Amino acid sequence: MTETSNNSHFIENMEEYIHQIKSLLENMAYSSNSATQQELASQVHGTMDSASGHQRHPSELRHKIDRLHPSDLACILEALPPPQRKFVWESIKPENKGKIMIAASGAIRESLIGGMSRDALLDAVEQLDSNDIADLLANFPQPVIRDIFKSRTIEEREKLRTAMSFTADTVGALMDFDVVTIRKDATVESVLRYLRRLDGLPDLTDQLFVVDRDHNFKGVLPLNMLLVNEPEIKISSLIIFDGITLHPDDKTRQIAHIFERYGLVSVPVLDEDKKLLGRLSVQTIEHYIRAKAERNLLGLSGLIEEEDLYASIWKSAKNRWLWISLNLCFAFFASRVIGGFEDTIEKFVALAALMPIIAIVAANSGNQTAAILGRSLALGQINEGNIRRLFIKELSMSLLNGIVWGAIAGSFAYLLYKREYLGLVTAAAMLLSLLLGALAALLIPLTLHKLGRDPIIGSSVLLAAFTTSASFFIFLGLATIFQVN
Amino acid sequence: MTETSNNSHFIENMEEYIHQIKSLLENMAYSSNSATQQELASQVHGTMDSASGHQRHPSELRHKIDRLHPSDLACILEALPPPQRKFVWESIKPENKGKIMIAASGAIRESLIGGMSRDALLDAVEQLDSNDIADLLANFPQPVIRDIFKSRTIEEREKLRTAMSFTADTVGALMDFDVVTIRKDATVESVLRYLRRLDGLPDLTDQLFVVDRDHNFKGVLPLNMLLVNEPEIKISSLIIFDGITLHPDDKTRQIAHIFERYGLVSVPVLDEDKKLLGRLSVQTIEHYIRAKAERNLLGLSGLIEEEDLYASIWKSAKNRWLWISLNLCFAFFASRVIGGFEDTIEKFVALAALMPIIAIVAANSGNQTAAILGRSLALGQINEGNIRRLFIKELSMSLLNGIVWGAIAGSFAYLLYKREYLGLVTAAAMLLSLLLGALAALLIPLTLHKLGRDPIIGSSVLLAAFTTSASFFIFLGLATIFQVN
Repeated sequence: MTETSNNSHFIENMEEYIHQIKSLLENMAYSSNSATQQELASQVHGTMDSASGHQRHPSELRHKIDRLHPSDLACILEALPPPQRKFVWESIKPENKGKIMIAASGAIRESLIGGMSRDALLDAVEQLDSNDIADLLANFPQPVIRDIFKSRTIEEREKLRTAMSFTADTVGALMDFDVVTIRKDATVESVLRYLRRLDGLPDLTDQLFVVDRDHNFKGVLPLNMLLVNEPEIKISSLIIFDGITLHPDDKTRQIAHIFERYGLVSVPVLDEDKKLLGRLSVQTIEHYIRAKAERNLLGLSGLIEEEDLYASIWKSAKNRWLWISLNLCFAFFASRVIGGFEDTIEKFVALAALMPIIAIVAANSGNQTAAILGRSLALGQINEGNIRRLFIKELSMSLLNGIVWGAIAGSFAYLLYKREYLGLVTAAAMLLSLLLGALAALLIPLTLHKLGRDPIIGSSVLLAAFTTSASFFIFLGLATIFQVN
Repeated sequence: MTETSNNSHFIENMEEYIHQIKSLLENMAYSSNSATQQELASQVHGTMDSASGHQRHPSELRHKIDRLHPSDLACILEALPPPQRKFVWESIKPENKGKIMIAASGAIRESLIGGMSRDALLDAVEQLDSNDIADLLANFPQPVIRDIFKSRTIEEREKLRTAMSFTADTVGALMDFDVVTIRKDATVESVLRYLRRLDGLPDLTDQLFVVDRDHNFKGVLPLNMLLVNEPEIKISSLIIFDGITLHPDDKTRQIAHIFERYGLVSVPVLDEDKKLLGRLSVQTIEHYIRAKAERNLLGLSGLIEEEDLYASIWKSAKNRWLWISLNLCFAFFASRVIGGFEDTIEKFVALAALMPIIAIVAANSGNQTAAILGRSLALGQINEGNIRRLFIKELSMSLLNGIVWGAIAGSFAYLLYKREYLGLVTAAAMLLSLLLGALAALLIPLTLHKLGRDPIIGSSVLLAAFTTSASFFIFLGLATIFQVN
C-alpha cells in the first residue's frame, strides 16, 4: 500500500525529476564513457517526449544509470533533492553502491548510508578493497561493522584492522594494499610471463614493487623499463632503489604535493623495517587535495564542513553557528571599544561615520599579508634566514600603504568636514592601524603554524577581530587625545 | 676585478647562505632522490663545520645542487633572497635551467630570466619540448624568441607555433606532443617488439595511442592490457575506443577534475577531424590545480597574482593596490551612509557602538551562503530544478539566524543601555540584514557565474560592500523611524 502510494507520488514528480537528471548529465560533459552518457541523456529526453500518455520507462532509465561511472553518479546524487536522491539510489545495483559511497563527499555519504538495511550495506562493501571499506566504516552502525568483519577472510580482516588503525590525516589511512610484487633475480621475460598470467593489474599501476622472500622492499621497476628492455635483461639491473618511499605515519598534508612535484603515479609505503605495506596512488592524493582546497574555501567563511545542498536547516545551522558566534563575540568586543569613546563621539558625530573606513582598509591589508605568508608557509619556504626579511618587507609595505591611503582617507575626511585636525587624525590612525594590522597578520599565522594548526583558516577570524577593534581604538583614541571637534 | 669583489662579498655571506640552503633542504623532506639530498645536507653541514679557516668548497656544493630535482631547485630559489638566488642560479648547468624555469612559479620565473644572456636562454631551452618552450616564451625578449625559432627544425617550429597559438586557459596550451602511437592491425607481440626498440617512453605514459596512416585517432591501448594479454592477440580487440578525449579549445577550468574523478594519467587531445594532436598528463593538470587553489586563496584577499617573497615594495604594491582601492571606495560609500544619519546618532551615541555588530554578523553569514553556492556551482550541481530550493533553504536559514542572533544582539543592546526600543530595533535590524545579505550572497555569485566570471573571488568585495552598507542603513534607518533615544 505504502509502496503503491510512493510510486504514484514518484510518477507525479517524474517529469521534474527526469528534467533534473538530464540537466545534470549535460553538466557532466566528460564521463568515462561519454557514449553511454549521451545515450542516457537522449533516452531521458525520449522518455520525456513520449510522456504525454504516462508512457515512461523508469526501468530502462535504471539500466542506463547502472552504466554510469560511480563518480558521476555520486555527483548526480549530491545534486538531487532527497526524495529523488532516494529513488535513484534504490535503483542502483547493490554491488555498485560501494564505489559510489567512496566517491561521494562526506555530507552526502551519511544520507546514502542512513536509509540502507544491514544486508544492503554488506552487499555494497562486498567487492571493495580493505582500505576503501575502512574509509566507509566510520559511517556504519556498530553491528554492521561486526558483520562485515565476520564476512571477510582472516587475511582481509587483518588488512581491515591495519587500515582502520591509522589516523585520518596520515598516509596509512589513504594507502591501498593492492600491489604487484616481483623478485629481484627475475628477468624481463619471466616478469612479462608472470604478468600475462594475471587477469589485470590494479588501477594506476605504473610500477612493480621488488621485494624479497620476507616482503622486504628492494626498489621499484617502472612498467616503462619493462617494456623498452630486452627479455634476457635481469630485473636487478633495472631496479630504482633510491626513489621516494612513504611511511604510514607520514602526514598527508605534508606529502600532498610530491606527486605533482615529481610527476608520480604511485609511491610505495613501507614500515620501519622497510617491509612493503602498500602503495599510495595519485588519484587518492588528488581526491585529498581537491577536498582540502574546497574545505579551505569553505573554511575561510567559517563553515566547519562541506554541506549537503539539501541538509535540514537544523543541520546546516550546526555547521555555521560556531563561526558566527565567534564573530558575534568579537563584534560585541569591538562594540565595547567604541562604547568606551561615547563621550568623544557625542562631541563630534562625524567620527562614527569615519571609523569604518579605517577598519575596512586595515582588515583588507592584513588579509593580504596573511595570504602571502600562508602560501610561503605551505611551500616550506619560511626559515629563520628570511623571516626577518619578510617582516621588514611587510612592515615597509604597510608604512607605504599607510602614507598613501592615510593621505587619501585624511583628505576625504577634511573635505567633508572642513577640520584640519580631523584629517590628520584620520591619516595617522590609518597609518598606525595598517602597521599594527601587518604585525598581527604575521604573528598570528606564524604562531598557529608553530602550534601545528592551519595558519590561514585559523587566523582569519582572530585577525579580523584584532584589526577591527584595534583600528577603532586607535582612531577614537587619537581623536580623544587631540580633542577633534 | 668586479668578479673578485663579488666573490669576496659572496664569501662573507657564505655562512648565512649555507645555513639557509641547509634549512630549505630539510623542509624538502621528499626529494626524488633523498639519498642525494641527505648527502648534500651533510655536505653543506661539513662545509660549515670546517669553515673556521675559510676552507669552503662552493664547487662541491655546486656539483650537489646540479643533482637535485628541478622542482626542488625551483622551490629553493624562490625561498632565497636575490643575491643568493643569483649565486645558486648561476652555478646551475645551463642545460638544466629550462626545466627549473618550467617548475618555478610565475613571480620567480621573471627574476630568473631577467639576468640571463641571449646565449644562456638559448642553451636553457635547447632540450625542452615545444609545449614547455611555448610556456616560457611569454617572459623572453622578442629577439631571443626569434633566435629560438631559427634554432629549431621545421617540424619543431611548427609544433612551437601550434603550442603558442592556444590561449592560456585551454587544453591546447597545456598539452604535450610527446606520444607513442601504434597501429590497429598490430599484435601484442609486435607492439612489445616495437617498444623495445625505443630508448624509453615519455614520462607518465600509461597508454599508447592507436592511429591510422593519416593520424586519425582510433582509440587507446592501456599498457596494462599490453602486459596481461598473450603475444598473439590482436591490438584491435584490446582497443578502448569510447574513452575520454579532449579538444585543444576545451577550457582547463572545466576539465581540471576529470583526472581525479576517473583516475586518469593521460588523455588524448584530438582536433575537429579526430586527428591526434597530443596528450594532457596528470602532472600538468595537477600543477594547474595547485596554482589555481593558491590563486583562489590569495585572490580572496585581493592579491592579483602570487608574489615573489623578495619582490620590491613597489612591485608588491601594484599587486595589492587595486583591491585596497576598491575597498576604500566601498568604505567611503559606507561612511556616507552613516553620515546620512548623523542627526540620529547625535541624539543617541550608543547607535555608533552597536552598528558594527550587525555589519560583522551579516557579512559573515553572507560569506557562508556564497561559499556553499560557489562549491555547488564549481561542481556543476546547480540547475533550474534545485535553484529555487537553494533560495528557500538559504533564506530560511537566515531567518532562523536572524531570530537567534537578533535576539542575542538585541538583549546585549538592551542590557547595556536599558532601552526596550533599542533592543527591538537591534534585533529587527539583524533579521533584515541577514535576509538581505543572504539574498545578495545568492544573486551576486549567480550573476557573475552567468557572465562567465569566477563566482567566489569576484563576489567577495562586492558582497562585503553591499552587506556592510545595507546593514548600516537598515539599523540607523529603523532607529530614525522609531526615534530610539
